[in-house]
Amino acid sequence: MSLGQVFISELLGTAILVVLGVGVVANVLLPRNGGFGGGPLMINIGWGFAVFAGVFASYKSGAHLNPAVTLGILASGADEYAKGVDISVASTFVYLAAQFIGGFIGAVVVWAAYKKQFDDHEDAPTNVFSTAPAVRAPFWNVVTEVVGTFILVFTILAFTKTPSQAGPLNVAFLVVAIGVSLGGPTGYAINPARDLAPRLAHFVLPIPRKDDSNWGYAWVPVVGPVIGGVLAGLAAHAYIG
Amino acid sequence: MSLGQVFISELLGTAILVVLGVGVVANVLLPRNGGFGGGPLMINIGWGFAVFAGVFASYKSGAHLNPAVTLGILASGADEYAKGVDISVASTFVYLAAQFIGGFIGAVVVWAAYKKQFDDHEDAPTNVFSTAPAVRAPFWNVVTEVVGTFILVFTILAFTKTPSQAGPLNVAFLVVAIGVSLGGPTGYAINPARDLAPRLAHFVLPIPRKDDSNWGYAWVPVVGPVIGGVLAGLAAHAYIG
Amino acid sequence: MSLGQVFISELLGTAILVVLGVGVVANVLLPRNGGFGGGPLMINIGWGFAVFAGVFASYKSGAHLNPAVTLGILASGADEYAKGVDISVASTFVYLAAQFIGGFIGAVVVWAAYKKQFDDHEDAPTNVFSTAPAVRAPFWNVVTEVVGTFILVFTILAFTKTPSQAGPLNVAFLVVAIGVSLGGPTGYAINPARDLAPRLAHFVLPIPRKDDSNWGYAWVPVVGPVIGGVLAGLAAHAYIG
Amino acid sequence: MSLGQVFISELLGTAILVVLGVGVVANVLLPRNGGFGGGPLMINIGWGFAVFAGVFASYKSGAHLNPAVTLGILASGADEYAKGVDISVASTFVYLAAQFIGGFIGAVVVWAAYKKQFDDHEDAPTNVFSTAPAVRAPFWNVVTEVVGTFILVFTILAFTKTPSQAGPLNVAFLVVAIGVSLGGPTGYAINPARDLAPRLAHFVLPIPRKDDSNWGYAWVPVVGPVIGGVLAGLAAHAYIG
Repeated sequence: MSLGQVFISELLGTAILVVLGVGVVANVLLPRNGGFGGGPLMINIGWGFAVFAGVFASYKSGAHLNPAVTLGILASGADEYAKGVDISVASTFVYLAAQFIGGFIGAVVVWAAYKKQFDDHEDAPTNVFSTAPAVRAPFWNVVTEVVGTFILVFTILAFTKTPSQAGPLNVAFLVVAIGVSLGGPTGYAINPARDLAPRLAHFVLPIPRKDDSNWGYAWVPVVGPVIGGVLAGLAAHAYIG
Repeated sequence: MSLGQVFISELLGTAILVVLGVGVVANVLLPRNGGFGGGPLMINIGWGFAVFAGVFASYKSGAHLNPAVTLGILASGADEYAKGVDISVASTFVYLAAQFIGGFIGAVVVWAAYKKQFDDHEDAPTNVFSTAPAVRAPFWNVVTEVVGTFILVFTILAFTKTPSQAGPLNVAFLVVAIGVSLGGPTGYAINPARDLAPRLAHFVLPIPRKDDSNWGYAWVPVVGPVIGGVLAGLAAHAYIG
Repeated sequence: MSLGQVFISELLGTAILVVLGVGVVANVLLPRNGGFGGGPLMINIGWGFAVFAGVFASYKSGAHLNPAVTLGILASGADEYAKGVDISVASTFVYLAAQFIGGFIGAVVVWAAYKKQFDDHEDAPTNVFSTAPAVRAPFWNVVTEVVGTFILVFTILAFTKTPSQAGPLNVAFLVVAIGVSLGGPTGYAINPARDLAPRLAHFVLPIPRKDDSNWGYAWVPVVGPVIGGVLAGLAAHAYIG
Repeated sequence: MSLGQVFISELLGTAILVVLGVGVVANVLLPRNGGFGGGPLMINIGWGFAVFAGVFASYKSGAHLNPAVTLGILASGADEYAKGVDISVASTFVYLAAQFIGGFIGAVVVWAAYKKQFDDHEDAPTNVFSTAPAVRAPFWNVVTEVVGTFILVFTILAFTKTPSQAGPLNVAFLVVAIGVSLGGPTGYAINPARDLAPRLAHFVLPIPRKDDSNWGYAWVPVVGPVIGGVLAGLAAHAYIG
């Protein structure tokens, strides 16, 4: 497939991922919602199946949906990013750009779907859009993100090469597993595009009385997942031999 | 298959969808029930697997079960509604009629299954049968329904053509995902037959002390899903090329 | 397979079904348990995957595990109960006997697994072992059981002939769906063996301070499911043509 | 495959199992966590999909991940532990050693991922790392572990020979089923490596203010699962004939 098709496919998949993923957080955390108070299991299931729908939608480009996956494939020494997509500087850039732009568009769509809930809220919180640590401790927060992303990317790469080969249902349940098990300390970004792009959307969107975008923390859910993804790619390469 | 078989198949599937879908809302919202207070995740899982059972039951007619799906397929320029079912004014009418009648029958069956719970209730609420917004704002409520229905119908059409080709389990998890993620503001009708037919049933059934059927809102969960489904059909057509 | 093999297979599958199914109720309802207060969704998921494990275990005999399924297959005019098992008075009796005996054994095993929880409990309740209505109203309780069992057996018979052909995962999610959606009024026995055999076990087991076995209600979760299963068999026959 | 490859595969799979499994308990039980108070269903789902990810990761060695499974296969009189892995004293030792070492490594990784949560906690409890009974009664605690492990190992062995042949999704749902249904009295170790190795990790890790490692109970979740696994192996052998 052409790089233009890769761009559309990854943008679409990541947008759907963020609409559904950020959506479930809005549903559970913002009052005056059917899902208000639905609890952490509901959020984790929402993120897992957000990825499921996204993988469905960008099957043909391998459904990376996540810079940590793209960079992990790169580090693993794979032959291609997806069937018929060579690995190059250009294709790497297309994947990453599509993921960030898709993530931004997805966050804008969530804002539209929850417009009145954001408007009525006393203090529309950043952490609907992007992650925040339960206990702020940058080094350990990075460790938590590295561990979660490593398990995600290693499991996918060592055994099936890309998320689309792993299958949407398997990827969904893997994300649910990581969320319920390792999501507590940092909110499990495990995906820089999922965190940074919605944070930017929160910053620019005309939401009344919004709180601080917490830019001081913004590097953690980028650096942690990138390290975890690259380590997973190297480990997958070593494991396969 | 003949249009008579299509009629039976879609009616049956939509009836099962509404029995189980409206049923889970009755179970969670009406006191003196084993499921009372089960929370929003239980409702979302109930709707997802209501669709699962309905797709199983109307596999042969493509398992539309939803006018937004039927109109989305029409807008996508597909060749047929299901294997061996041509697209025509007559077949379109058969799908829509079967879905609305099936939805009405399903709502009557739920009422019978929960007869004593409805009878004992102080004020049998409409929103067991049909959706209501958390914050009434018709324009934004339509937007929320458009977004949810678009993701449902686009994911199905662009990748697998009909819900039955997507497979019951995949459709179930897609509906769970949309429910937990976008269900908060409007209760996610994402299906005019699921909303309008049970609303009519609530209106005519001999339920004591029932509240208002909220006809003023009834157009939103019809118009929103129809717009979302048609846009998804057009987008799927453009995406496939 | 021989009738002796059918007997072992159905007994084993029904015993596993009841160990896990009655087990989840014990876990959620009896204090001094890790699962205490886990809520109705946990109970419904437990029953769904209790059936999943049971279907796995009695695959070869068709995994009826339920007199309503056996009688539904009989009413549907099928050629055989499972691959290589003819329909006759003798084979029907073997299925039903194995299901009831398996259900009894399963209930005894649950009692052993939860021995200290039953002993410490002020008033070991019948409704851990068997179902009880939220509102006692025999006619409407029968209606609720008929509706739930009809959907279970019709979905299985009309589309896949036996639970084992439907596949363990599909049957599991169908049972979860029926539980969350129609379980409220009566606790969804939808299976006479699952209800009557554990009720008998509760009656005879040496549990201190146990409450009444509620024999006056015991006919409802037998008669309702049998009617539902037979109606589903007849409907499946008519639907297939 | 060579025994070295078996060692790496089982170590990796068991480490992932314990990272995710012990992780979900940390997430739900330790305050200052996104998942705090998520409840028993979340814990059970976490363990089920911890096993899912582990089975994925150690597919080639049969994904035992559990001494009770290895010893159950041994007792069943099977020809090999996995495709191309003969049963011998050496290979048995390799499986068990890899499972315990993997479990220990997994527990250390969880500690790193939840470092601040453990540090801030008043009294870092053993039962995040290993199981504890709701009511201490060694004989009956063993019974509960025997029943749970028997169902796990028998279902896998009698029908599919190894967890990897059963498939990751099926094993996941089987573990969820056993957890919600039989997990109440003892916390369902059903796996000596999952319990003993993290208990040792809790004992040696530099966690401030940690409570007692409860070594007096440590034999129960070893002996119970071993008995259950061996009985299941013998029963599977008898059942297959």
